[in-house]
Amino acid sequence: MKKADIGLVGLAVMGENLVMNMESKGFTVAVYNRTTEKVRSFVEGRAADKNIIGCYSIEELVANLEKPRKVFMMVKAGQAVDSLIDQLIPYLEEGDILIDGGNSHFPDSIRRTEYVESKGLLYVGCGVSGGEEGALNGPSMMPGGSPAAWQYVKPIFQGICAKVEDGTPCCDWVGENGAGHFVKMVHNGIEYGDMQLICEAYQLMRDGLGMSAEEMHDVFAHWNETELDSYLIEITRDILGYKDENGEITVEHILDTAGQKGTGKWTAVAALDEGIPLTLIGEAVFARCLSAVKNERIKASKLFEKDIPVFEGDKAAFIECIRKALYASKIISYAQGYSLMRSAAKTYGWNLNYGGIALMWRGGCIIRSVFLGKIKEAYDKNTELENLLMDDYFAETIKALVPAWREVVAYAVKSGIPMPAFSSALSYFDGYTTAALPANLLQAQRDYFGAHTYERLDAPRGQFFHTNWTGHGGNTSAGTYNA
Amino acid sequence: MKKADIGLVGLAVMGENLVMNMESKGFTVAVYNRTTEKVRSFVEGRAADKNIIGCYSIEELVANLEKPRKVFMMVKAGQAVDSLIDQLIPYLEEGDILIDGGNSHFPDSIRRTEYVESKGLLYVGCGVSGGEEGALNGPSMMPGGSPAAWQYVKPIFQGICAKVEDGTPCCDWVGENGAGHFVKMVHNGIEYGDMQLICEAYQLMRDGLGMSAEEMHDVFAHWNETELDSYLIEITRDILGYKDENGEITVEHILDTAGQKGTGKWTAVAALDEGIPLTLIGEAVFARCLSAVKNERIKASKLFEKDIPVFEGDKAAFIECIRKALYASKIISYAQGYSLMRSAAKTYGWNLNYGGIALMWRGGCIIRSVFLGKIKEAYDKNTELENLLMDDYFAETIKALVPAWREVVAYAVKSGIPMPAFSSALSYFDGYTTAALPANLLQAQRDYFGAHTYERLDAPRGQFFHTNWTGHGGNTSAGTYNA
Repeated sequence: MKKADIGLVGLAVMGENLVMNMESKGFTVAVYNRTTEKVRSFVEGRAADKNIIGCYSIEELVANLEKPRKVFMMVKAGQAVDSLIDQLIPYLEEGDILIDGGNSHFPDSIRRTEYVESKGLLYVGCGVSGGEEGALNGPSMMPGGSPAAWQYVKPIFQGICAKVEDGTPCCDWVGENGAGHFVKMVHNGIEYGDMQLICEAYQLMRDGLGMSAEEMHDVFAHWNETELDSYLIEITRDILGYKDENGEITVEHILDTAGQKGTGKWTAVAALDEGIPLTLIGEAVFARCLSAVKNERIKASKLFEKDIPVFEGDKAAFIECIRKALYASKIISYAQGYSLMRSAAKTYGWNLNYGGIALMWRGGCIIRSVFLGKIKEAYDKNTELENLLMDDYFAETIKALVPAWREVVAYAVKSGIPMPAFSSALSYFDGYTTAALPANLLQAQRDYFGAHTYERLDAPRGQFFHTNWTGHGGNTSAGTYNA
Repeated sequence: MKKADIGLVGLAVMGENLVMNMESKGFTVAVYNRTTEKVRSFVEGRAADKNIIGCYSIEELVANLEKPRKVFMMVKAGQAVDSLIDQLIPYLEEGDILIDGGNSHFPDSIRRTEYVESKGLLYVGCGVSGGEEGALNGPSMMPGGSPAAWQYVKPIFQGICAKVEDGTPCCDWVGENGAGHFVKMVHNGIEYGDMQLICEAYQLMRDGLGMSAEEMHDVFAHWNETELDSYLIEITRDILGYKDENGEITVEHILDTAGQKGTGKWTAVAALDEGIPLTLIGEAVFARCLSAVKNERIKASKLFEKDIPVFEGDKAAFIECIRKALYASKIISYAQGYSLMRSAAKTYGWNLNYGGIALMWRGGCIIRSVFLGKIKEAYDKNTELENLLMDDYFAETIKALVPAWREVVAYAVKSGIPMPAFSSALSYFDGYTTAALPANLLQAQRDYFGAHTYERLDAPRGQFFHTNWTGHGGNTSAGTYNA
């Protein structure tokens, strides 16, 4: 009997769908699940009459694999992955490949790569995006780990992943050890940002312009035919147009408290660790946290009654301004996300292909959009681009969007409508494009109370000065204020 | 010979100053330093003819202490603390007390309390703020750890710490294990926020109103006689008025790239871990990061040339608006910081005294201000206050400040002057006071692409719904868009 091209452990929906996807592309797949009843029901059900081999032990699974053996682990991120690795290792031999397709935190993938390689095996930590539907029909895949593994998994991964219009696969080698899961994490952070931006546009139209869901449905339908063309704009259009059996708009009955699975948080923490301003995603994560305290917000809304003004300008023109402001903010979010990846690449020694990452995100995943094609072009033109805003296309685009962006944010500020992501994006843009920030005063403060010293504009960098600001005390000084 | 009331290890400036402070309040102090030459120079110099006992080994130090022995460790945060603990333990006996006065990360203090207690000893992790000057003349002290230790260290700590006008000490027991260092960390995060707010006000006056340092010096001098009366406003006044020997304004020659020691970052990470929106401090940390890329900013400022409009209104009136906006933003920052402490108290089982914390910060430390007295009053009135904004005084105050706040942020937004902290504070206020946030749409999106389910406004909490948004696919559904 022909042995399997690949094995997969973990037959939850994502795992099953990946198996069906691989089989449909001509690969034979051996499958195993800890609760073996799941194996039986799968091979007798969806997997019946397919090139899918049901296995009832780890040993049996491994015995059914072509060498070098490839085992795709689709189990819960965390301790379960470590346990499974330790169960598999005794049955594997040099050059075999372990693949983690879960949402693992990248430091875990760094650690596991080292561990698995120390046993003579190869490791792949692979971000998989696109949900259950993507797993079945073509996910976006972001593999990193042991470079020597790539040639063996490449035909399978590029066979099953999403493709862009010209057939280019949305999967390429990302980099060593945790690089794949890092890029997947940034993807998820950007997803948080994109969703928050859409939500803020919706709130401004709803509360500021008094628009109905139907009207907003039309707006998003139109936006999806512009530079904003993307999966998230498309589903927003659908959601706003969706009525239940009683003809009621479903979205208007949904409780406004959002959940978060933690990957957005990881992205914000990584940015803090790298010292990279990732303000928009940070605000998006915090906005979810704020949504969670619904009862407090209701109480506060009564204490601080709001009188949102009636909009009195040209509505259609203002909606176009919102669209432009959304696009500008989105560019900032991606610029910040890419800056984070550039910084992490230096920290962890990854040689990231930034255009390739944009291409991987072009299809299959939640943030897929036409816009990512422009990012790919920018990095293809200049692989060392220090910030997306420095690219000609994005620089010219942003310049054209700025007046509308300022108008929209100022309107929200005046009206009392919260737009944390739009406004943090604008603050970042204004900070990034300001040659002289006020950190000179901040350095003076730090030198005043802590003798931290400072550099001067008129002296070489690396030369440090201290001022005895109070005129008393010694070389180190601080105020005598005592409240 | 009389034994010492307390021992101190680590004779850098902070350590020396604490010793001098303790001695001046009538305590006898035994001192030790790893490089023992430092001990000799200290006892022959500053400590000569004082009740200070120089020791040249750990053993000698311990032998010179009254029981229960108290050893104040003033060494570099991190591994050095763990090493020192392990060097001390063999010489100590049940009930002796180890005190860490460094800037330790609170999880380390949680771990060390457990470890030291397992050896039969008591542990105190104590935040000490106020810099070198504070250490000498009266720091703000935030002790946490083993509750049984408090009665022994209290007379010393409350003897040497800063006092408010009526003599109340700026030191009280914070809570178990890492509570003291947690509160100190939040203090530092708030310090980041306060400094950033002052910097943004400075930038708006400088770049938006075209004001000179002398004019701003007068403004801060005035502000220091209002509700903003605080150490940081006071030193800003001094800095803006400081001229070098050539009559040049020193602050204008300082390079605008700020350093950060990491405690601001810790605070932001803690907020992300707790799921508490701490947007202002987050923006303040990121603003320091952005200040660091000076060369990129210069390049970007040329690519995106700015044309900041000339201010054409009533300057004095607008400066008063800036003052109000600064005060409002500051209230938000403290509201967020206190929310973080409330959440952490639940997570870690600390019984924090919020009014007491405000009192500890009233004197001695960098964020000391008259304003903290109002916070103390708020928590004295209601120890369970869920948010500072819900307190009568702060609610009425904020209401009066809101119009000016909106005007200032909108002006900055229109002018291109970055004010990330002012505007994130306003976004938070507007979000917190909004009963219906747009997270209903966000939940719909998550249900659309990931079948994450949602709750409804018209159904009990805890009941979850799923909609088959696309009308095809099974119970789990996702779009078919494929860019």
